[in-house]
Formats: sequence, structure tokens, C-alpha cells
Amino acid sequence: MASTLEPVATIDPSAWVCPLPLRDYPAIVIGHGGGGVLSAELVEHVFLPAFGNAALDALGDAAVLPLAGAEATGRLAFTTDSFVVRPLFFPGGCVGDLAINGTVNDLAMRGARPKWLSAGFILEEGLPMATLGAIVQRMAAAARAAGVQIVAGDTKVVERGHGDGCYINTSGIGVIDAGVEIGPSRARPGDVVLVSGSIGDHGMAIMSVREGLSFESAIVSDCQPLHGLVDAVLSAVPPGAVRVLRDPTRGGLAASLTEIAQASQVGIALDEARIPVHGPVASACELLGLDPMHVANEGKAVAIVDAAAADAALSAMRAHPAGREAARIGVVTAEHPRMLVSRTAIGATRVVAPALGEQLPRIC
Amino acid sequence: MASTLEPVATIDPSAWVCPLPLRDYPAIVIGHGGGGVLSAELVEHVFLPAFGNAALDALGDAAVLPLAGAEATGRLAFTTDSFVVRPLFFPGGCVGDLAINGTVNDLAMRGARPKWLSAGFILEEGLPMATLGAIVQRMAAAARAAGVQIVAGDTKVVERGHGDGCYINTSGIGVIDAGVEIGPSRARPGDVVLVSGSIGDHGMAIMSVREGLSFESAIVSDCQPLHGLVDAVLSAVPPGAVRVLRDPTRGGLAASLTEIAQASQVGIALDEARIPVHGPVASACELLGLDPMHVANEGKAVAIVDAAAADAALSAMRAHPAGREAARIGVVTAEHPRMLVSRTAIGATRVVAPALGEQLPRIC
Repeated sequence: MASTLEPVATIDPSAWVCPLPLRDYPAIVIGHGGGGVLSAELVEHVFLPAFGNAALDALGDAAVLPLAGAEATGRLAFTTDSFVVRPLFFPGGCVGDLAINGTVNDLAMRGARPKWLSAGFILEEGLPMATLGAIVQRMAAAARAAGVQIVAGDTKVVERGHGDGCYINTSGIGVIDAGVEIGPSRARPGDVVLVSGSIGDHGMAIMSVREGLSFESAIVSDCQPLHGLVDAVLSAVPPGAVRVLRDPTRGGLAASLTEIAQASQVGIALDEARIPVHGPVASACELLGLDPMHVANEGKAVAIVDAAAADAALSAMRAHPAGREAARIGVVTAEHPRMLVSRTAIGATRVVAPALGEQLPRIC
Repeated sequence: MASTLEPVATIDPSAWVCPLPLRDYPAIVIGHGGGGVLSAELVEHVFLPAFGNAALDALGDAAVLPLAGAEATGRLAFTTDSFVVRPLFFPGGCVGDLAINGTVNDLAMRGARPKWLSAGFILEEGLPMATLGAIVQRMAAAARAAGVQIVAGDTKVVERGHGDGCYINTSGIGVIDAGVEIGPSRARPGDVVLVSGSIGDHGMAIMSVREGLSFESAIVSDCQPLHGLVDAVLSAVPPGAVRVLRDPTRGGLAASLTEIAQASQVGIALDEARIPVHGPVASACELLGLDPMHVANEGKAVAIVDAAAADAALSAMRAHPAGREAARIGVVTAEHPRMLVSRTAIGATRVVAPALGEQLPRIC
């Protein structure tokens, strides 16, 4: 029996010097998870300085990984997302659907074919077994529908009061075909902005059930996989014509397009009247004082495409079941670089800034 | 503005039929996360029936994924783990060290070279920014030490009282070299069981700080990466001589070896006196009525190797800084298949059953 123990210094968290500017937040606030300015600051000032590397710095929906050794070749996409939606079940889906489709979509947004997912559960003591069972069955069905396999898993249990029923992390691996080059920094002035359908459905579906609001029509989450739609668009246009794909989840269309404008050093100008919004969603947003452009989606893609290929890309979207309401909503411009502007219905132009924090916490 | 909404049925969790035998647990208990019998039942009766596929069914520390298309070739290992350790900082490390080394080690246990990690944070509102910063810096240092890059990330924030400071999920990808075939079902009668060092250090380090126990010597977690040790062993023996590798985390040596015995349909017989246990760990276990074989490790590997290569493998372990206290602790046998037995110091033989649930909750 050996008995040598090496002394290891105890870690002192107070030794860490908080980088400026973290807006003088000495502690995490809900908005740090909201996909807006606070989230971006956390990434820029805490995570990137510590972890930074070329794949992470690209800040795409998924990292692109080159396999170039003797033992493996090709390009992979790799992504991770944790899902903490409240409530666990909502009109149109549950946390399990989100966990599968969210990660499938992050891979699709790099033009990758989604193949393998992991599922990590953090369960709260007391979660009814039937609730877990129902979530898991929805995940299995969503994985089948998206053509992916769940190949790795982990379960942790935390004490009552230290969780919220069920948190799920899914990470995913996809394979990127040769010639596919899609990323947030590839938008160019003159490109066209397409959206694959109506915006705001997911966030308002969560909001309506959480707040007990009722509207004349039920609002249903748009949670769905988008890899098929992406495949249809890529097949319909010349190689390279699709510059950027993004699924506007937390932070909505406003956050996604602002991130693209910043990464590509271009301006983006939207024609607000062309952006599809379902009637009940528009009404609910008006009632609650929310802008649909900031509301989360879980089954929509925004695509920046070469103007010459825009009609073909739009037709391909509309021919796909997940893109029947697709629309051309704006253009990329050399003016006002790094900014998103929107021409309103009455012809005025406004700057659309991403939200500081979170309009609707925990929608995914 | 389109306004078509498709009706989607609301999901009814109560429609799920709980499979037998889940030991009549209508709800999740802490033990479902403990790495023992209850965890195994959850995997067998809830996750595998829903998600099952060849890669997942193998139940290794990481899934083995074949890339065999025109666009990518090779074999990858893929794994996921969530870390909910309490307290966040403990002697010898913190949740961030665990998150990196735990996932690096799961990849190494399939003989893979760890390459890329994702990091998904679930932060509780109110977590001091300096605590997050210190955790992230430890993660960055651990990633550098293990030679892996963190290439994908995600942050969610939950309200005060719905988390426990900081939960971290890490998923990882490694590349498996040609000729490396390591997996839990490959043990054969006559093989030798090696362990890379003392057992029980991590679990007892957590326990001592959590319970405010003090012993004559401080107990320090063994949290460390093992890919270098695995590489050294694989280089020292003929191809195929290393049958199984496992890092005995939750559930300890007892759970890992029982899982191997079951997967390989063999018996495993240990010589208890040969198992290295540091003096303070042995004393603490005795005091608390715990068996070190059930206590978690975070920097130890158990290896099942061809008897002809056992001396070479053991020498390679001992020559590596992470394996200086490595020992030969038992043999694989055709007797008592699917069972782990241990010959005690006084010559008696006892069956070592995995724990039902969790001796020490939330140690990783």
C-alpha cells in the first residue's frame, strides 16, 4: 500500500481578475444566457481569452474540424448546446425535441450532414419517471426524423431544489462535403438575405403557456430539423453561392443578423414588411411590447446568398416542407458596416440593436 | 405576412408506460446518477430502448464512430459527461479540471488520441464572476496540459435556486489509430488486471472537504489526464495486447470491473492486498464505513491486458508520471462469469457487487 501524497495548492477563486468591460457585473445575471450583448461579452472576455483557437474564434453555430492525419481525413462540424427550457413541455414539442433539433440545426448551419449526437442529462431528484420517459421518447423520434444516432450519453442527478426537472446537453458531429464553405464571415455586399419562414413562433409559444396567455389561435413552436431544407438549397445553387446560414434561436433574427454583420464587416438592411410573422404571434408581441425580431425560433434558417442564386435558393426553400413560407427579406450592403437596419412599413429606417440580455428567459 | 398554423397535439407525459423492472421507482432518486445498479437500470430500460444503436449499445467510455464516406474516413471516439460536483473547488482541483480531464480520459479509454472538446455551461444567477473566471482558467490550463482544444461552447443561465452555481458538460472527439481495438467486451480468461495507481483519492478528497473532516494528512484528488499513460502502454506492448481500458470514476473500481465482467462474459478475481490505497484514504474509508473499491477516481485507469504483455504494460505505467504506483491486482477467469470477486488479506474470497446507488453523491 503506497502512501505518498503530493501537496497541491488549494485554488483561490478570488485570485481571478475580472476583465473589463464586463459592465461591472460582479456576478452572473439571467441576461448572460440570453444570446444578446451580455452573452457576447461573456464569450469575448471570459471564454475566448481562456480557450481561444481558430475553430472556436470563428464563433459559428458549429466548429469546423479538419481531420488530416494518416488515420482520418475529412472535415467535421462539431457543436454543443444545453437546453433548460421552462416548462419542459410546450405547444409543439418539449425539451427533448429542442435538444435534438437544436443541435441538428447547428450542424446544418455549417452545411454539414448531421450524423451523431450525444445526450447528457442533469436530472433533479423527484422528476417523475414518466416525464423522463416521455422526453426520451420524443428525443428518439426526433433523432429518427433527422436521421441522426444518439451514440453517447451521461446522466447526473442533483438534489431536489438544485435543478429544474431536466436539463439536457446535446453535442453533435456532422460531416461537411467537399466544396461546401459556409460561415458567418462570408457575407458580401450585394448578397440577398432569405428567411425560411415565419419568425417568433417558438418564443411566443413558450411565453403564452408560461404566462397562461390565450389568444384566438394557439401559438405553436416551430421546432423542427432544418438539415433537409439546407440540403435542398445547397443542391439548387452553384457551389459557394450560399455564404452564410444561421438559425435565429436565442436573440432572434436581430441577434443572428447582427452577428453576421459584425463577423463579415458588412451592413445588412431589412425590409420589415417582407418578414413573415404569423398573425397570433404579431398580436401577442404587440400585447407584450416585444419585437418579433428579438424572439427565438427553433425551426427557421436565415440564409445569405449570392444575388444571382437568390431566386433559385428561395424556390428550393419554398418547395421544402420546412420552408413553405420562405421570403426574401433584405440585402447585404457596404454601408453602415457591422450594423443591422430595418426599413419599417411607413418607410422609415431604424437601427436594430441586439438585446442587452434576455426578453424571454429560458426559452431553449 | 403568412398566418397558417398547423395544429400540433399537446404532449401528454402520463401516456408513457414505465418499463419494468425500474424497481418501482416512480421518480428519479439521487442513486439514478450514482453509476451503480440504479444508473444501469435507467440506461437499460429507458435510454437504450429509445436510442439504441451499435455504437451506443457497446456502452464504452466513448462511442466509436466509423467515417467511411467519400468525404471523410477514419475512426473517431466521441463521448459526453456532465459535471455537477459539490463543492465547485476541492483539494487538487475544481469542476473545471474534472470537466476537461474526465472527457479526455473517456476518449483515452478507447485508445483514442483526444483532440477536440466542447464546453456547455449551465450557470446559476448570482454565481460570482470571479468563480466562473477561475473555473474557466483551470479548464484552459487543463486543456493545454492534455493537448486538446475547446472548439465549441454554449452558456445558459438559470434563475437563483434552479442550479448549483455551475454545471459543465464537456463532450469530446478523439481519433483512433489503425490497429487499436479496445473495448469493454474484449477481456478473455487468463488476462491480467492492472491499475495505474492508488484508488479512492478523488471521492475521499471531496468527502473530506464537504463534511469538514480532517485527517493527519490532507487527501487530494487524483484528477489528471491519462492519455499520455495510455499512449505509453500501447507503445510498449504488441497490437491487441491491451484488451480493455476503463477509468473507474463514479462507482469506483467495483463498478468498472463488474461492467467489464458483464460485457466480456468473464469472471474477474482481485487480490485485495495488491490494490494500492493511500494511508489517509484507507483511514477515512474505515472511519466512514466505506469500501475504497466503490469510491470514485478521476485520474486512474484499470487495464485488462494479455498475460504475456502484462509485465511490459506495468513497467510502461510505472515509468509514466501518472502511473508510478501502478500495480497488478488480479486476473480474468472463466469461473464465475459476470462476477467480480476479491480475495481478502486473510485469504477469504468475497463477491464485490456494484453499489445500488451512490455512496457519495455528486463527486463529479
